[in-house]
Amino acid sequence: MKKLINRADDVVRESLEGFAAAHAGMVRVNFDPIYVARIDAPVRGKVGVISGGGSGHEPLHCGYVGMGMLDAACPGAIFTSPTPDQMLEASKAVDGGAGVLHIIKNYTGDLMNFEMAAELARSEGIEIDTVIIDDDVAVTNSLYTAGRRGVGLTVLAEKITGAAAEERRSLKEVGDICRQVKDWGRSMGMALTSCTAPHIGHAMFELPDDEMEIGIGIHGEPGRKRMPVQPADEITDMLMEPIISDLPYRRGDEVLLFVNGMGGTPLSELYIVYRRAAEIAAQHGLKVVRSLVGPYITSLEMAGCSITLLKMDETLLKLWDAPIKTPGLRWGI
Amino acid sequence: MKKLINRADDVVRESLEGFAAAHAGMVRVNFDPIYVARIDAPVRGKVGVISGGGSGHEPLHCGYVGMGMLDAACPGAIFTSPTPDQMLEASKAVDGGAGVLHIIKNYTGDLMNFEMAAELARSEGIEIDTVIIDDDVAVTNSLYTAGRRGVGLTVLAEKITGAAAEERRSLKEVGDICRQVKDWGRSMGMALTSCTAPHIGHAMFELPDDEMEIGIGIHGEPGRKRMPVQPADEITDMLMEPIISDLPYRRGDEVLLFVNGMGGTPLSELYIVYRRAAEIAAQHGLKVVRSLVGPYITSLEMAGCSITLLKMDETLLKLWDAPIKTPGLRWGI
Repeated sequence: MKKLINRADDVVRESLEGFAAAHAGMVRVNFDPIYVARIDAPVRGKVGVISGGGSGHEPLHCGYVGMGMLDAACPGAIFTSPTPDQMLEASKAVDGGAGVLHIIKNYTGDLMNFEMAAELARSEGIEIDTVIIDDDVAVTNSLYTAGRRGVGLTVLAEKITGAAAEERRSLKEVGDICRQVKDWGRSMGMALTSCTAPHIGHAMFELPDDEMEIGIGIHGEPGRKRMPVQPADEITDMLMEPIISDLPYRRGDEVLLFVNGMGGTPLSELYIVYRRAAEIAAQHGLKVVRSLVGPYITSLEMAGCSITLLKMDETLLKLWDAPIKTPGLRWGI
Repeated sequence: MKKLINRADDVVRESLEGFAAAHAGMVRVNFDPIYVARIDAPVRGKVGVISGGGSGHEPLHCGYVGMGMLDAACPGAIFTSPTPDQMLEASKAVDGGAGVLHIIKNYTGDLMNFEMAAELARSEGIEIDTVIIDDDVAVTNSLYTAGRRGVGLTVLAEKITGAAAEERRSLKEVGDICRQVKDWGRSMGMALTSCTAPHIGHAMFELPDDEMEIGIGIHGEPGRKRMPVQPADEITDMLMEPIISDLPYRRGDEVLLFVNGMGGTPLSELYIVYRRAAEIAAQHGLKVVRSLVGPYITSLEMAGCSITLLKMDETLLKLWDAPIKTPGLRWGI
């Protein structure tokens, strides 16, 4: 295992210490229990938007804390759900009196712990709404999931929902915007290589030198099939067709096209995938009105990519374009 | 070789096609000869700022074309200098009548070709100034370099110089700002793994499973020494001490601290390096006033990092903070 770390047990804490130092103007990090909050939380009268999950997917979620996106994020150990006390304390820290929305990727541990945190928060008088992101069309159930997994759409949901909260919409309205994103977005991913969690010290799974896995999850959970590595265009076809036919996206739809890197794949290769994905979208009569290309929800150093399509309307477009200032996404301010 | 590509010969072109499609509002790509220009080039009365170099370091340089940074970038083949005709045509495309600045990383091929392009451009009546970035303190000469290599500082030079040009400063002033950045910045890098150029098909160099290379270049050129992999804190010490003692940076200096990922290293690990680098800076009495953490000048999928320190003054701070809108860096607009 070759990593820029000290002790495996200290990875999450030390990484957050560096993160806190680098972005002191945007976020503050609480270490007991661990959560990251925007520097000006709680914002009076604003719905607090929270997410969280296992570490190892950076910049998700902590990198998306800041003006216009998340009010707080709760990082667990690598690929491990955070605990209810983290989510409870984060909810209290960002409660500005207008309620708190929990955005949860659909993994069993995350669901259980967020549910418990929501109950505890409600018992302390904080109104909580919950949206579960389950955009991965690859498999119906998975190692850590009943139902579909939550993957790339989470980034888009956090951005758009955060912008809705910034407009001082009500908890009901903010939750409904997030549910719209959940309903209108679909994703699928693939891996060329495995990745190594520091505390485990060996690859999460084995992938032979000439094989890839289509439909992989962000923790290396099995996907649809293993096969010899194919050219990028064929790989992109294998991801785009199931995505488009699932919603289904229809001729004339305006979409945001998000090509995400899993961590170890160079940006230049993501653009090769984007090129083909945009061609396929055009062939289906979809109009790509916004794009995002880069490593925004990763699996440590895994090589591979995922593609997310989100159908857009005027409301989502306006919220996507709204100013944002987080360590991981920033424009307009 | 596991890559998201089609044919090795098509990597640069197809990647640029995807890039052009994803960022159509910011840039346009010319394919014969190849260069990327900001969408509104040439801007009348503004100095044009150009850079370029081998591909494989994305988002550098093409990702930094746009308002507030580069007017054009010339990508060569992977790890190969672009040709003089690319630089000449790019210079002509961005010449708004106020002259053009060439920012060149110090590699022999780049220097030769930019020099020839500058002569040709001058013979067509375009005023050209040139700044050579050579910030790598690791080695005096290298495989492709007489003198020090140009590495991480290039990103900062392009941002700050681009902001100066945006203020409609003269070619002399814009060049002088770039020379100030060149003089005030120092870098050093390291690698945990090698990388594979698509057209070569095997690793650029061999690095045993338990070894790292300190002082590596961005094309895998040999550095100072090979040694067993050390903890991140010790690695950071080995990079920071030569950087600080080289300028030298002095107690009381305000600095920008840039921890760069080589491509295959997760963001979480870069923050662990940042954490220690900030500690060392503080021990030397340096005040970190700005930070940048992420994969901004990469070596394909190489795992590793580099650190850059840039001494700041009021002018550089103002130019660093100025609005920017490029595919790779964006804030304020």
